[in-house]
Amino acid sequence: GYGRFGVYYDEGAANETTIESRFRLVVTATAESDNGLSFGAQIRYQANEHADGYSTRTAGFNTPRFWVSTGPFTVSVGQTLGALEFMPGAYAGSIGLTGLGYHNVLYTYGGADAYSSGSSGRQGVDVLYASGNWGVHLSYSPDQTTQNTGLTDTNERIAGYVSYTMANYTFAIGGQSSDAAGDTDAVVTAAGTWGNLEATLMYADNGANDDAYGVGATYQVGSATYISGYVTQNNDPAVDDTYAGIGFQHRLGGGTFLEGGVVDAAGTTKADLGLRFSF
Amino acid sequence: GYGRFGVYYDEGAANETTIESRFRLVVTATAESDNGLSFGAQIRYQANEHADGYSTRTAGFNTPRFWVSTGPFTVSVGQTLGALEFMPGAYAGSIGLTGLGYHNVLYTYGGADAYSSGSSGRQGVDVLYASGNWGVHLSYSPDQTTQNTGLTDTNERIAGYVSYTMANYTFAIGGQSSDAAGDTDAVVTAAGTWGNLEATLMYADNGANDDAYGVGATYQVGSATYISGYVTQNNDPAVDDTYAGIGFQHRLGGGTFLEGGVVDAAGTTKADLGLRFSF
Amino acid sequence: GYGRFGVYYDEGAANETTIESRFRLVVTATAESDNGLSFGAQIRYQANEHADGYSTRTAGFNTPRFWVSTGPFTVSVGQTLGALEFMPGAYAGSIGLTGLGYHNVLYTYGGADAYSSGSSGRQGVDVLYASGNWGVHLSYSPDQTTQNTGLTDTNERIAGYVSYTMANYTFAIGGQSSDAAGDTDAVVTAAGTWGNLEATLMYADNGANDDAYGVGATYQVGSATYISGYVTQNNDPAVDDTYAGIGFQHRLGGGTFLEGGVVDAAGTTKADLGLRFSF
Repeated sequence: GYGRFGVYYDEGAANETTIESRFRLVVTATAESDNGLSFGAQIRYQANEHADGYSTRTAGFNTPRFWVSTGPFTVSVGQTLGALEFMPGAYAGSIGLTGLGYHNVLYTYGGADAYSSGSSGRQGVDVLYASGNWGVHLSYSPDQTTQNTGLTDTNERIAGYVSYTMANYTFAIGGQSSDAAGDTDAVVTAAGTWGNLEATLMYADNGANDDAYGVGATYQVGSATYISGYVTQNNDPAVDDTYAGIGFQHRLGGGTFLEGGVVDAAGTTKADLGLRFSF
Repeated sequence: GYGRFGVYYDEGAANETTIESRFRLVVTATAESDNGLSFGAQIRYQANEHADGYSTRTAGFNTPRFWVSTGPFTVSVGQTLGALEFMPGAYAGSIGLTGLGYHNVLYTYGGADAYSSGSSGRQGVDVLYASGNWGVHLSYSPDQTTQNTGLTDTNERIAGYVSYTMANYTFAIGGQSSDAAGDTDAVVTAAGTWGNLEATLMYADNGANDDAYGVGATYQVGSATYISGYVTQNNDPAVDDTYAGIGFQHRLGGGTFLEGGVVDAAGTTKADLGLRFSF
Repeated sequence: GYGRFGVYYDEGAANETTIESRFRLVVTATAESDNGLSFGAQIRYQANEHADGYSTRTAGFNTPRFWVSTGPFTVSVGQTLGALEFMPGAYAGSIGLTGLGYHNVLYTYGGADAYSSGSSGRQGVDVLYASGNWGVHLSYSPDQTTQNTGLTDTNERIAGYVSYTMANYTFAIGGQSSDAAGDTDAVVTAAGTWGNLEATLMYADNGANDDAYGVGATYQVGSATYISGYVTQNNDPAVDDTYAGIGFQHRLGGGTFLEGGVVDAAGTTKADLGLRFSF
């Protein structure tokens, strides 16, 4: 898990500057059968001072995920991971202590299954394959009302991606079939590294929300300091605007970080600065 | 704790076939005094995709139990274990990934104090004694409204059993005094092992719910494969029907299991199949 | 954390004698940077059979606290510790299994920021300094409605103390500025040890709640047995009464204790007796 704390600024909000903190505890349990099957289960506890809904005693563990792995295959049951969320390059150019809205992640302008550390997510099944240069991920979540989970979302989603890595380049293409018109239909990413620079081109067809494209990059400027940033264009007619963000990460060693960033999110400025540590 | 996931079938339910999963995390804390008293406390977290009421953020830890042990005696305070629940032979013949309703447990046709991993149970006291061939368990739970616990059950229960093991045979007899007319008054079990077969005869007097009887058995058919099953008759006039179930368990080693079962529960068929692992 | 269980008596309450138990689980996560900064985060889970609001599934983890330390300095963010709560001598003379209301803690007759293991507390910042004979603690909690935490308390508090230890004597003086008229303005404590006796004089100016004073002491009567007690006078016109309590602790070794106490709390008798163990 991790802990983070710092200051968060949101231009025009009722309270523009607030103390930001989050505690995430990851509980992972595993077992292995005699024939080499790996079993696992994971729950995550998340408490967040900043955002409503994570206050004490309303915070809690998320819905568990279970998996069994053998060789290159993993089958996951329970809370859905979501192929488009876990696609290589999806989070390229992420900035700041908090992600500042993660406007670099293009499928968020549409919609897709995504794993949530702080809520119930969607119940479904993932199949993952990773071998050599190839990666494949299929995810499926049924109409949630058919699963006796108490969830009321009747949407059904099937998604997948294929990725291929060749020397310093990684290409990934993903697609999704969904009952929701505004959900993402396709995502393509192409990433490359040149010395200290890693850059990723991204494109998404967000169905009724039109398409979006952008570039995200990270540059190592010192032995322990990294600059990240992105520029994305969301053609959703309701938005039709540009998002641009830049941030830095200074690694203090031992899993501790000083991080901050600033983003122009379709005309609204957000910024954060703080300390984070992994455990 | 354990994790389990698979498929659950319930004939005639609104959603007959659903994805089944459960995550149980057991937190046990112990200490020992210089004079050899063992202190302990335990809470359990349980999240269940299948059943309503265990969805994320409504799932939580159960009510704790505390105990102190010295030699053959253990005194337990907090969530009541319940003597009839912990009686030898009570769960003989249990089947499947989920227990499929545990219709082999005869006191469930009546009522008794029982420890719950996923809810508050009842607050009370247990005294356990185990020495040589003898086992004794007394449990007491007062009117819950007198305990400032927020629980509203005014029932008061005192229960106990005595068990004796002789070579390959174990006999147990238990009784309960309760304010509820439908609660179980008495339970008797007689279990024996013959080679690969373990079989248990069971009888319960469930007070106003009349009596019930049955047989449960487990047979080891291979080096790592077990077949279990039961047939029980519930004479409760509102039911007056037979329950019959059969299931298998294949042990994959390292605390991992493939399990499944099917039950005819008074005319309704239920079945399950899945993987389980302990940690 | 710890577990405790026993019996609690509250004269005149709807249920005078109840089974008392509490389970507290402390989860602490830490990391250290290459340059020697210590990072930490802590959450606590508390379930209490006795008190309303801690029943199962309404019990939960408290709001997290985060800190970073270097040399004698610690900065803490998240749930506020509160300088007056952590002042030396504040809890002198505490008795019993449960504290029996902690009427020896004089600021509780007024008001101050205080860390809570079982609830949200208040979000703020603490700065602590400890070096040689000196201790300093400053705490600040802003108007909670400006922090997007969902808390509705508009009070703002800044508090601090300075303490100095000289041979067997420790002196501490603290003050607080608050928007609430009934909050504590100042606290002074003076503690000394003479052989087996430790005694503390205490005074608090509780603002609109007038002042309070008292003495708390602990005496070691045997190799593992301690007697504690206090007498305090609360001049709050609405009370204007004396509180007197006495208790014992017998240490069983290995972090296990037998504890009990009795208090005359402004005319109401409360008592408890039970076992506690640390883990």
